[in-house]
Amino acid sequence: MIFGVDYYPEQWSPKDWEEDLGIMKDMGLTSVRLAEFAWGLMEPKEGKFDFSLFDAVLEKVGKAGMTAILGTPTATCPPWLFKKHPEISQISKEGIVRVVGTRRQACFSSPAYRKATEKIVTAMAKHFGKHPVVTGWQIDNEPGHEGSDLDYSPLAGINFRKWLKDKYKTLKKLNESWGNVFWGVMYSDWNEIPVPGAHVASDFSPSMIQDYHRFQSDELISYLKLQIDIVRKYSPGRALTTNLYPSPFLPITDMHELFGHMDYVSWDNYPVWGNQKEPYPHPLVSATQQYIRGLKDQNFTVMEQFSGVQGHDTLGYLPPPGQIGLWLTQAVTNGANQIYFFRYRTARFGQEQLCYGILDHGKRLTQKYFELQKTISEIKEYAEDISDQNYPAEVAILHDIENARNYKHQPLSDGLKFSPVPFAQVGYDIEIATWFAGTNVLNVNTHSFPASKDVDWNRYKVISLPLYTVFDDAVVERLSNYVKQGGTLVIGYRSGIKDQNQWIVEEPVPGRFREMAGVESYQFEAVGEDRVSVGMGIFPLKGNKFCEILEPTTASVVAKYTDKNKFYKGKPAITVNSYGKGKVYYVGTSLTPESFVLFYRKVLKEAKVPFGFLGKTIEKHFRIGRKYNYEILMNHSGKPRWAGFTRLKPFEFRITKINK
Amino acid sequence: MIFGVDYYPEQWSPKDWEEDLGIMKDMGLTSVRLAEFAWGLMEPKEGKFDFSLFDAVLEKVGKAGMTAILGTPTATCPPWLFKKHPEISQISKEGIVRVVGTRRQACFSSPAYRKATEKIVTAMAKHFGKHPVVTGWQIDNEPGHEGSDLDYSPLAGINFRKWLKDKYKTLKKLNESWGNVFWGVMYSDWNEIPVPGAHVASDFSPSMIQDYHRFQSDELISYLKLQIDIVRKYSPGRALTTNLYPSPFLPITDMHELFGHMDYVSWDNYPVWGNQKEPYPHPLVSATQQYIRGLKDQNFTVMEQFSGVQGHDTLGYLPPPGQIGLWLTQAVTNGANQIYFFRYRTARFGQEQLCYGILDHGKRLTQKYFELQKTISEIKEYAEDISDQNYPAEVAILHDIENARNYKHQPLSDGLKFSPVPFAQVGYDIEIATWFAGTNVLNVNTHSFPASKDVDWNRYKVISLPLYTVFDDAVVERLSNYVKQGGTLVIGYRSGIKDQNQWIVEEPVPGRFREMAGVESYQFEAVGEDRVSVGMGIFPLKGNKFCEILEPTTASVVAKYTDKNKFYKGKPAITVNSYGKGKVYYVGTSLTPESFVLFYRKVLKEAKVPFGFLGKTIEKHFRIGRKYNYEILMNHSGKPRWAGFTRLKPFEFRITKINK
Amino acid sequence: MIFGVDYYPEQWSPKDWEEDLGIMKDMGLTSVRLAEFAWGLMEPKEGKFDFSLFDAVLEKVGKAGMTAILGTPTATCPPWLFKKHPEISQISKEGIVRVVGTRRQACFSSPAYRKATEKIVTAMAKHFGKHPVVTGWQIDNEPGHEGSDLDYSPLAGINFRKWLKDKYKTLKKLNESWGNVFWGVMYSDWNEIPVPGAHVASDFSPSMIQDYHRFQSDELISYLKLQIDIVRKYSPGRALTTNLYPSPFLPITDMHELFGHMDYVSWDNYPVWGNQKEPYPHPLVSATQQYIRGLKDQNFTVMEQFSGVQGHDTLGYLPPPGQIGLWLTQAVTNGANQIYFFRYRTARFGQEQLCYGILDHGKRLTQKYFELQKTISEIKEYAEDISDQNYPAEVAILHDIENARNYKHQPLSDGLKFSPVPFAQVGYDIEIATWFAGTNVLNVNTHSFPASKDVDWNRYKVISLPLYTVFDDAVVERLSNYVKQGGTLVIGYRSGIKDQNQWIVEEPVPGRFREMAGVESYQFEAVGEDRVSVGMGIFPLKGNKFCEILEPTTASVVAKYTDKNKFYKGKPAITVNSYGKGKVYYVGTSLTPESFVLFYRKVLKEAKVPFGFLGKTIEKHFRIGRKYNYEILMNHSGKPRWAGFTRLKPFEFRITKINK
Repeated sequence: MIFGVDYYPEQWSPKDWEEDLGIMKDMGLTSVRLAEFAWGLMEPKEGKFDFSLFDAVLEKVGKAGMTAILGTPTATCPPWLFKKHPEISQISKEGIVRVVGTRRQACFSSPAYRKATEKIVTAMAKHFGKHPVVTGWQIDNEPGHEGSDLDYSPLAGINFRKWLKDKYKTLKKLNESWGNVFWGVMYSDWNEIPVPGAHVASDFSPSMIQDYHRFQSDELISYLKLQIDIVRKYSPGRALTTNLYPSPFLPITDMHELFGHMDYVSWDNYPVWGNQKEPYPHPLVSATQQYIRGLKDQNFTVMEQFSGVQGHDTLGYLPPPGQIGLWLTQAVTNGANQIYFFRYRTARFGQEQLCYGILDHGKRLTQKYFELQKTISEIKEYAEDISDQNYPAEVAILHDIENARNYKHQPLSDGLKFSPVPFAQVGYDIEIATWFAGTNVLNVNTHSFPASKDVDWNRYKVISLPLYTVFDDAVVERLSNYVKQGGTLVIGYRSGIKDQNQWIVEEPVPGRFREMAGVESYQFEAVGEDRVSVGMGIFPLKGNKFCEILEPTTASVVAKYTDKNKFYKGKPAITVNSYGKGKVYYVGTSLTPESFVLFYRKVLKEAKVPFGFLGKTIEKHFRIGRKYNYEILMNHSGKPRWAGFTRLKPFEFRITKINK
Repeated sequence: MIFGVDYYPEQWSPKDWEEDLGIMKDMGLTSVRLAEFAWGLMEPKEGKFDFSLFDAVLEKVGKAGMTAILGTPTATCPPWLFKKHPEISQISKEGIVRVVGTRRQACFSSPAYRKATEKIVTAMAKHFGKHPVVTGWQIDNEPGHEGSDLDYSPLAGINFRKWLKDKYKTLKKLNESWGNVFWGVMYSDWNEIPVPGAHVASDFSPSMIQDYHRFQSDELISYLKLQIDIVRKYSPGRALTTNLYPSPFLPITDMHELFGHMDYVSWDNYPVWGNQKEPYPHPLVSATQQYIRGLKDQNFTVMEQFSGVQGHDTLGYLPPPGQIGLWLTQAVTNGANQIYFFRYRTARFGQEQLCYGILDHGKRLTQKYFELQKTISEIKEYAEDISDQNYPAEVAILHDIENARNYKHQPLSDGLKFSPVPFAQVGYDIEIATWFAGTNVLNVNTHSFPASKDVDWNRYKVISLPLYTVFDDAVVERLSNYVKQGGTLVIGYRSGIKDQNQWIVEEPVPGRFREMAGVESYQFEAVGEDRVSVGMGIFPLKGNKFCEILEPTTASVVAKYTDKNKFYKGKPAITVNSYGKGKVYYVGTSLTPESFVLFYRKVLKEAKVPFGFLGKTIEKHFRIGRKYNYEILMNHSGKPRWAGFTRLKPFEFRITKINK
Repeated sequence: MIFGVDYYPEQWSPKDWEEDLGIMKDMGLTSVRLAEFAWGLMEPKEGKFDFSLFDAVLEKVGKAGMTAILGTPTATCPPWLFKKHPEISQISKEGIVRVVGTRRQACFSSPAYRKATEKIVTAMAKHFGKHPVVTGWQIDNEPGHEGSDLDYSPLAGINFRKWLKDKYKTLKKLNESWGNVFWGVMYSDWNEIPVPGAHVASDFSPSMIQDYHRFQSDELISYLKLQIDIVRKYSPGRALTTNLYPSPFLPITDMHELFGHMDYVSWDNYPVWGNQKEPYPHPLVSATQQYIRGLKDQNFTVMEQFSGVQGHDTLGYLPPPGQIGLWLTQAVTNGANQIYFFRYRTARFGQEQLCYGILDHGKRLTQKYFELQKTISEIKEYAEDISDQNYPAEVAILHDIENARNYKHQPLSDGLKFSPVPFAQVGYDIEIATWFAGTNVLNVNTHSFPASKDVDWNRYKVISLPLYTVFDDAVVERLSNYVKQGGTLVIGYRSGIKDQNQWIVEEPVPGRFREMAGVESYQFEAVGEDRVSVGMGIFPLKGNKFCEILEPTTASVVAKYTDKNKFYKGKPAITVNSYGKGKVYYVGTSLTPESFVLFYRKVLKEAKVPFGFLGKTIEKHFRIGRKYNYEILMNHSGKPRWAGFTRLKPFEFRITKINK
């Protein structure tokens, strides 16, 4: 278990460095992340490299007995590169040219950017690659963040057409696959194909947009792969990762594919950011951590862990005493075995002068410092004991990048639209998290995986697969086998009806799952944010977003619509079907978080998965260590709360050792 | 009476065609609309035409004893045209270039587009013009839709300057007419004149914008006229139309002028679309149908009639059983004598894969199919009997394209602003519909006409003319004669004060109507959406949007402001004036729908027009057939409702024959 | 004291002129403002000047015994200039090119615009400069209005780089000052530096943006200085001014610096505009007038005084009888000694055809005319008696352009963000006005000054300085001396912590004020619009926007947080510290207007400043005239109200003479 910190020695005086490292060590930190925004510093002029600052810092890091992760500095590039190659800029969907002076500006399709990247990364990897203090590398920084996963520049257009040619070989095939007979858009020359960017009213073809999303993912991954190959060559034995940006799930880039090329996953954990008035609900934070854990099915790193209030030009919520320590414990409990706090000391200048670190702008030790120091010492033994052990679970939730992309451009219901920033549409992500919350609030350890991941599903008693509209036959087949062998599968509305070309199948919902689910649906209403009454036995539930009217073939009814304002009152809303030795639940509507909890109680009970509700703000996990097992109780409320017979103080966590 | 369907054989396999036509016939359909998006299919390369697919389809249509309307395919154009002529794209006010891959992209001022249009339409008209199965043509598709009635491309700018030169001859005249002495914008060269597009704060001159709207209307009409002339030449004896897009009224293009060149009006009837949570109120749907009917004062066609839920990327309301049949009946009752359902079967791909047709993505017959089949058989005799008879009315409401355009750029009150999509401002349209609702809810057959239409007003006992701010002296004169001869005219606030150059007159409101109305107003408040109390005798009304303080000269007071928060409490709000043998009501404020109903009760009673309120959800019409007369009762509610002594089931309609 | 009117003779017939001047004189007006939008009229072709219209008008003005102020006509420029120099257009942050046909389009950095300005202003000044009727000049019109104080055109970029070179001399210095080591944006060539315009997510560096704001201010001032120098040369003895646009404070341009070059300040006073449903609260109007008065610490002019409802395409609130007279009296009372009404008669055409003047579109004398005529005659004696006497005050509030700019790009809290139009962010201005309201509502005459102004602070018993985050050491020093000598200083949250480079200091809040205030703060919450309970003795207050947790060193506690939902309940929120002979209050949170009133009661009482609350709608001022002193009572309510023992009618003002 490593506790470290993100450190920017270039922003302080060399006189500070030794003292800074001492302050870190006193707090219990043993590692630093360095250099991920320092391209301009390390290559002040084209081809002229200067690594002296970080040489000096690494020497002091070594002397302090600490280690370092180095970031490749390609998330911003030096002004001289933009001047020489103005075409390097990304262009947003709205037409904004991303220029020097901000970050994440460069186009992944730009040959000049790739060439310059190759040079700086080669120089850096050669120079630092075998340094004894350097234990690993972070490739780039938050790749794809801030909407840079969708670029509409002319260079992107050129590569898109190449990508299409590579995929479809002939325009005939492309025209057929996209259904271009619709509106008569039959391309007869590859260069006729635009990028599916800004438009006034009707959008571009869904098949085209889906391909554009895939293309952009491939571009980003190939760009990072370029760096990975260089670093692997010159820095043998070092572990490679990159840090995923904080939003819950990642809808354009296939992060599962990306981390196939890396050694572990890391992620930036900000339960509250900017002008948020409240932190994210704790189940959303755990959902994200399990998503991160599941990308490689192994423990992970938090590369940036919240330590102080953060924002670029506005701020919000101030975590009360105890909460930042609780968030640290939550991350460890969900599977983090390396945690770097963001950041050591608050920058006095620049766009992040309001991104507070452990220390403030001055060097006085803060309450945050002492709180994290104390938490580290309290959880250290526990963290060490579980650091190389997997997070155990009998339940899993599956997500799917193809569906994330699909719902980005075709949300289906206003209830599946959510754009906290203009360049994001994370309705899919929120829906997945809402389903996850159902078992999280019942204190059931739950895994999260890409649906396409090669996992032995028989490990799990219950698997949930929401919003699996775009299907992959291989996945359907594997899930079918899982159920046949006794598993419980919970699938959601609108499942199994779009093929990989984005064509909707001829058979009714749930398409490829019809036999398994024993149910069909021919009518639906997209109810947006409205709440629709549903009855499950004596339990009143609330549906929303989408309401399918179910017609069971072999399934039996679990819940019915009971809403007196709906003509489909009395029609089935949730069914269950026996299939092989297992069961398939079909949930024809989305549910509110409270209703998901009620529904999962039933599912878990029947699947013989132990669960227990301890209150809305209490989170309980179970971990297996080398020496002990552990029950971890966390109170996410600012008030004292009972967790069963245990009284927890505000933001208290309690780790109970259980003898094996 | 023809019931037909919009059919896209190109989206299905040739093996489907015969079966499809059989399914249609079984439902009671006898006609199809074809080809309106198939340019890319019919001219895959420039100048290389291929009509084989539609030849084959028409052959089968003929064999099935059915007929066809062909659409000219110019609402999208083939990619090769964009590649050869990149300048062909429209540019939106916000600067978005409308590229290939979406629809309605091409600039009506583009010589390349006109030339290419000429070629494909000529080829198509020559090829299909005399085909026995082809009974008519739809020119283009929804021309002007999706904001394409306002183009700000450089080509539009060039033609705008030509248009201005043609209109004003000299810059002196233009500068005077626009009042360019204001802000000192005296043009001394035609090429100095920009298009009145995007701006940061203050807008362009209202006179200039109004001219730009007129110019754009002329461009669109002349573009369609080009096609009309070709089709008339090569397809003799066929009826020509185009289909107006679904929004209630059409504020830029002068549709009355356009249909002067065509044989009948058609329109696309979607009482609910996209993510709407509720359908439009039924009076709005009838208002639109009467607007359509009035454009040529004759029966009309619904070219796209709602059959299934519709949307591009999100959906909403699901019509309960009975409602789509009711909407069909409502259209027939308002004067439709041809109805084509949109669409036969739901596309599996493309931007409209969520636009559900009669059939879903598969071929299983749906509940919608059976419901429409049943409705057709129920109303067929009625529909046939009235199909060549005019819709009778003693009351009319007038609208005016000049005022629609004026209120688009100068809404006057926040209450007259409504932009359901960014490129539309339909406050004028909603105000007209609200006035229309006043008589519709009282179950009075009501006509709707362009104010400038050459109609014998003496047909009517009551004529309403809301928002007639921009006046035409000839119209004022004709209405004056109408009143003198005994008619009742109801005019609204802000009447008669802007001339054709957009200058406000020197005399006070109601300007040109002062003598007729016997009232003046010197003060007003634009109250936005606020409600202001008004008393009409014992009836409490609610005004909104705009409140004029009236000063009667010869008129008597009908209603007064009674709002204790307004200093003009006690001042007249509505007046009536005897003029010749008739009466002029002047309504100095807008009213809520409920208040309009109360006000019209008074007006109708005094004008001796029979009316009767049967509840908010009940609509009653009276039709005259060749054999019988008919009273049609419709319940637009999902609950059972009394209509007088008749109990109607949810969404029930009842057609009662009355012997002549 | 002069009462005048804004007159546009060019918009009317020469036949009107004499009659118009007669109507004005009858009303009590003795001066006109002319010509400020007439460039196109006076220079119809490049270099061809024609002043005949205004010659004729001035002759009639002289004959009528009236005077004139001439505006230089550069707020719009003639179309020929745009045609010849298309690069002259400003480009907004969003990329909109400001073209001919609107106003405020030209780029202040454009050599062509400056050259053309020089020519027209020289010709005009030569022609009219010594005209006996011309008493003064208005330079340009509302410079910087409508977002034209921020231009992102390429020409602005060129001058920005020159400005930076001039300021920093070397890129090394610039890189250090901006902290460009952050994100590695070290510039190595001046031409690499972009303008900090549109961006997708993360903004540009705060140091860079602050410099851009300073640069734009310098550009505008130097552009106006160019005109000033010409007019001074050719029009000796005439008083020079320009009219500030109506928004409360002016966040980009340093107006204090600007008016250093002019003779007096003028301003456009519209207490309600466009679609506003209510006028601004009266303390906001007085706050603005005192801001205007304070720019030169002398009486001022209202160059455009509200006379009729105003708006470009929508309208709103109608002032009841009495209110426009009250607004006139309020302006005079706050220090206006020249008032020009906007405008004589309402334009029949152009963008301002809905900007109603004293007369409407016709020439009939209106209720507004008679109301203003009556008010002028009522206040004339009072106005004359105080017209050359300063507005007296014992209390002052300070604002600061550097902080206004800072909060524009770094608002800190959602509660400090307010954008009534997209191009404005006036959260700082509203906060200053809210603090001002605290003493205004207590009927304490209050001055307002730029913090950097060279004023003898010892004049004042109490000085407030809110949001003084960016500090100037000289200002801090002077305030420190003021307190030491016995003054009372009230400072606000987040004071004293950003230096002129936008770096945050190492010491905690309140930074440079720590010793004076005797308090420190290490934690804060940005609570946006939420209200947080604060207790000041028995008085319950409400904090909002920002809550600092205070840790007094030498100060004593004035108020504490009492909010049970906040963990910092019980912590100090407001403190007071004795320092030298004076006191420093530190207000760690913003307060609601009501709470500010309660807080200031305490401050004023202790500082021995007399005050008295007479109700929310009552405003009382004290003025010293040459002959008498005056107490002015104003009722800003539409209902009768008691002001102590005086009963005021709706919108009544009462001026009581007090013998000296």
